[in-house]
Formats: sequence, structure tokens, C-alpha cells
Amino acid sequence: MILTVTLNTALDITYRVPVLRPHTSHRVTEVGERPGGKGVNVARVLAALGHAVTVTGFAGGSTGRELREGLAGVRGLTDALVPCAGRTRRTVAVVDERTGDTTQLNEPGPVVSPAEWSAFQDVYEDLLDSVSAVALCGSLPPGLPVGAYAGLVRTARAANVPVLLDTGGEALRRGVAARPDLIKPNADELAELTGSHEPRRATQDARRRGARAVVASLGAEGLLAHTPEGTWRAVPPARVRGNPTGAGDSAVAGLLSGLVEHLPWPARLSRAVALSTATVLSPAAGDFDRPAYEELLNRVSVTGEVSAA
Amino acid sequence: MILTVTLNTALDITYRVPVLRPHTSHRVTEVGERPGGKGVNVARVLAALGHAVTVTGFAGGSTGRELREGLAGVRGLTDALVPCAGRTRRTVAVVDERTGDTTQLNEPGPVVSPAEWSAFQDVYEDLLDSVSAVALCGSLPPGLPVGAYAGLVRTARAANVPVLLDTGGEALRRGVAARPDLIKPNADELAELTGSHEPRRATQDARRRGARAVVASLGAEGLLAHTPEGTWRAVPPARVRGNPTGAGDSAVAGLLSGLVEHLPWPARLSRAVALSTATVLSPAAGDFDRPAYEELLNRVSVTGEVSAA
Repeated sequence: MILTVTLNTALDITYRVPVLRPHTSHRVTEVGERPGGKGVNVARVLAALGHAVTVTGFAGGSTGRELREGLAGVRGLTDALVPCAGRTRRTVAVVDERTGDTTQLNEPGPVVSPAEWSAFQDVYEDLLDSVSAVALCGSLPPGLPVGAYAGLVRTARAANVPVLLDTGGEALRRGVAARPDLIKPNADELAELTGSHEPRRATQDARRRGARAVVASLGAEGLLAHTPEGTWRAVPPARVRGNPTGAGDSAVAGLLSGLVEHLPWPARLSRAVALSTATVLSPAAGDFDRPAYEELLNRVSVTGEVSAA
Repeated sequence: MILTVTLNTALDITYRVPVLRPHTSHRVTEVGERPGGKGVNVARVLAALGHAVTVTGFAGGSTGRELREGLAGVRGLTDALVPCAGRTRRTVAVVDERTGDTTQLNEPGPVVSPAEWSAFQDVYEDLLDSVSAVALCGSLPPGLPVGAYAGLVRTARAANVPVLLDTGGEALRRGVAARPDLIKPNADELAELTGSHEPRRATQDARRRGARAVVASLGAEGLLAHTPEGTWRAVPPARVRGNPTGAGDSAVAGLLSGLVEHLPWPARLSRAVALSTATVLSPAAGDFDRPAYEELLNRVSVTGEVSAA
């Protein structure tokens, strides 16, 4: 069993409109809706790969109810979300059918009370007893201490559960100092953490700050991994066009599944790149194109760079 | 008791964003949410004026549940909505805080089944026994026959209940032929119904098509009423700036309350214009500014035009 934590879950809504014209009125031609938030997306990909996965975090209000109804339909996924009094946020993606471009509107998350945070920590600690890895994903909702992830990293380490942290800003900075097994920053998050825009230098620096391994996601340039076992760059066979929403979450699912299957790093990285490329190629945001994934898996180029320091 | 019918109710969501830039991501700074659909808005204004009012139409799904929770908090308002299997639509108004302009995204309504439509008609007929007037408001959700309003007009007339129809397009054309007591088209709806862009000619023509009285809402130029008792034009004392959302619904509430209070036409029209102007002036879309309403009431100019044909 793998555990994913999404403290700021979301109900992701997609609207298709023929053309988006600001300051006018639009009839939405198609409405899509599904459970979201980074850890939820990671869990869905893990479940699609055949892993048993448990989702925790907060859910509240009518949108939280819908989120949980949506999760109930995912085979292999267990809902261990903790109720909160506030309402789970909605995100609205407005797709312009003429250009394919998306305009994103993200509600703020619910304010989580100290009592709710404390109830969550108890649930989390109990869940750690029966899982082989945990991923802590996404932004913190209002009300939580900025060191929230650092605390969850320490709890996982105390329970001997490998812990992956995928967040940004101050929450990442504090979380890294608590020594997670793996972080997966994108280029912006890595630069914000380390002050360096040079990925190789920055991934090394992120390790010095406390992360046992760092896998930086560099968009079309693939992944750069700096680990105790070595340094690798993994790149897709060709540039692809499509919707990058969820590509980072698919990479996390690839890394995490490879970790619990005890794959060597190059195989983990191939899987992560193939999954994230197949996510860009999928017409539905956040889903991955399975035939493309299987075809890409053997075509990802993984090259060792310098040996680890 | 006044009855308002909203076949295509809505959960109206308002997002404030600092600046709306298409094809980028936005953090919503403020989320508003309230029950909507034209007849629901009319009912809220009637309740604020001190009238007992019953709301019917359809509500379904999680959004329908939220809509009904919102209505439960309105003093003087009774919820007689009929459940449907489909989900009540959302409307999203995105307000650009820099310009104050609004971008509107309207979901399609739920598909109403023949059995649900039949259940509604039974409820409607029962409700007519105890009401002094009924307003039929807004668009038809998918699945309903285009003659739906015509049937509801005939049922009201058979029950001797004065009936106001406020809709557009083919539903208005069919509804008018069933001889409602009053219609309140805006300039576009009136032109579409009659083929004439000249309001005086068009209101006369609309009466010939079956409406006993016609009150056309002409935006900043106020109302033009053509009735068996005479023809009047009612205009606000000055042009006002603000958000016109809901101004037409407030005018309907003014006309309907004046009708059940047996006010003479000029007083009904003053009230409708004052309410709709005070709605434009209110910072919250669809609410009216009560001190402005009371102040405006004696300053609306109502002038008789030619005598009725």
C-alpha cells in the first residue's frame, strides 16, 4: 500500500467554450468534473498502474462530498480523507476550443483549524503503520503552519517509511530540512529553494539542504536526478505537444511506484518520464495515454552523469 | 402568497480576480455563492419587500442541494422546488477587480425527464390554489417542450391566478399566444418576438399576439408599459452606473408586488423602476440598495402616453 497526502484537495472543473472573450457571457458547451489536488492525481496514476493506494488529506463541504463520491469510483484506491468544516476548493479550467488554451481559476482552500490539523496527524500516524511509501503533495491550505510538511516528513522517518515531498516555496524549504528521502521540484521550485537557476548545481545544493535524493523535472528536457547512488538525466525520445497539466504528478507516481518495486534508479526515471510524457499526450488533462506510455518506456534515454559526491 | 417558477435554477458563483488574463492561471481572491435563476432572484426581492413568496421549479444534485440550503436562510420564502435527477447548473461570474468588468460562464441546465416534468406540473397546479399571482421566469432546461410556459400560463388562467411571463425566444412566442396577463421583455426579446426594433410599435404588437399587458424594460431608458388601462413610460431620475445584473428581475418583483397590492399602474411602474435602479446601484450583484430604493421611489418620472387602443 502506498499513501498519498493532499492537504489542499480540490474539485477540478473543466469548462469548454467555443472562444473565451473576457467581459462577455459564454454558454459552456461541456462540463467536466473530477477529484483533484496533486496527491489525488498521483494516487489515480498509481491505481492505474495496479498499485493499492490510500488517499488522505482534508475534504469538507459540498465540494468535499463530490470529491469523495468521485474517489469511490476509482478501483484500487482507498479514501482516508479527514473531514474539515471548511469547504474543499474548486479549480475551474476554461478551455478555449479555438486555440486549445486554458485559463485557470483556483479558489483558495478551506481554513483548517488546529483541532482538524491535530486529528489529521493522528490519522496520518496510524496510516504509516501499513504503507511502504508516502508522498506529500501540493500547497498547504490556509490555517496550517508553514512547517506542516516538515512535521509529516519527521513522522514518516520515525516510522521508517520512505517519504517523497512535492511542494514549493517556504513549505518546501522547511520540509527539505527535515530530510525527506526524495523531493521532485520543477525548475522554478528548485531555483526558489536554492537561489540557483543552473539545474545541476541546484540539485546538488538541494541535497546539501537535507533531501536524500532530488529529481528535478525540467519540462520538455525531462528529469535530472541527483541521488546517493548516482546522477542521471532522463529525457523523452522527442518533444511532444499537448496539455502538461498533471505531467509532474505522473512523474511522482512513476518515481514512487519504482521505489516500492525496488527498481534501480534508471528504471524508475524511465518510468517517470514515460508516464509524464504520456500524460502530456492524453487528451484528458491529468490522465495518461496507456499505449503511448508502454511504447515510450523503452525509448526514454537515461544517461549517467558524474558519480555522486 | 406569490409564486415564482424557475425551471432552470442555478447556483450563482462569483469569483473576484485582480486582473483576468486569458490563458494564464489565477488565484481567486474572493468566492461568493448564492441561489440563482431569474425566478429565485425575483422571489428574494419580493421577500425583502415583505411579501410571502414560494419558489418552485427544479433542483438536483449537489448544486441543487446547495441552492436549497441557501434558500432556507431567506426569511419569508418557502422552498417548493421539485427534485430532478440531473444536476442544477452553476453560473460563474468572474469579476476583474481592475476594471470591474464581468466575464460570465453559464453551464447548461440538467436534462429534465418527462416524468419529472409531469411531477412538476402536479406540484404547480396544487400551489396555484393558494397564491395571488405567479411569475414564470427564465430559460427552459434541456428536455422540456418549447411550449412548456404556454401550458403553465393556461393552467394559471384556468385557476384564475394572474400570470407574468419573463422569458425569451420561442418559449416567449409560444407563451404569449397562451395569453398571459403580463410579459416583461427587454429590448432584444421584444424585437425577437415582434420583428420590430421600435419599442412603442413592438409593445403594441406583443399585445396583439396575446399578452394582456406588456412592460418593456429598456435599460437606462426605464420601462414602457402598454396595458388595457393605458400606456406609460417610467424613467429613473438620472442615469446610474453600476452592475445591471438582476435589474430586470427586480423590475419583475416590483410589478408583481404592485399587482397583488392592487396599486394603479403608475405606482407599479415607479416601484419597478426604483427597484431596478437600486439594484444597479448595489455593490452585490442582484441585491438592491434599500435606502436608494426608498429615495428613488418618489423621483421616478411616470408619464402617460397615448390612451390604450
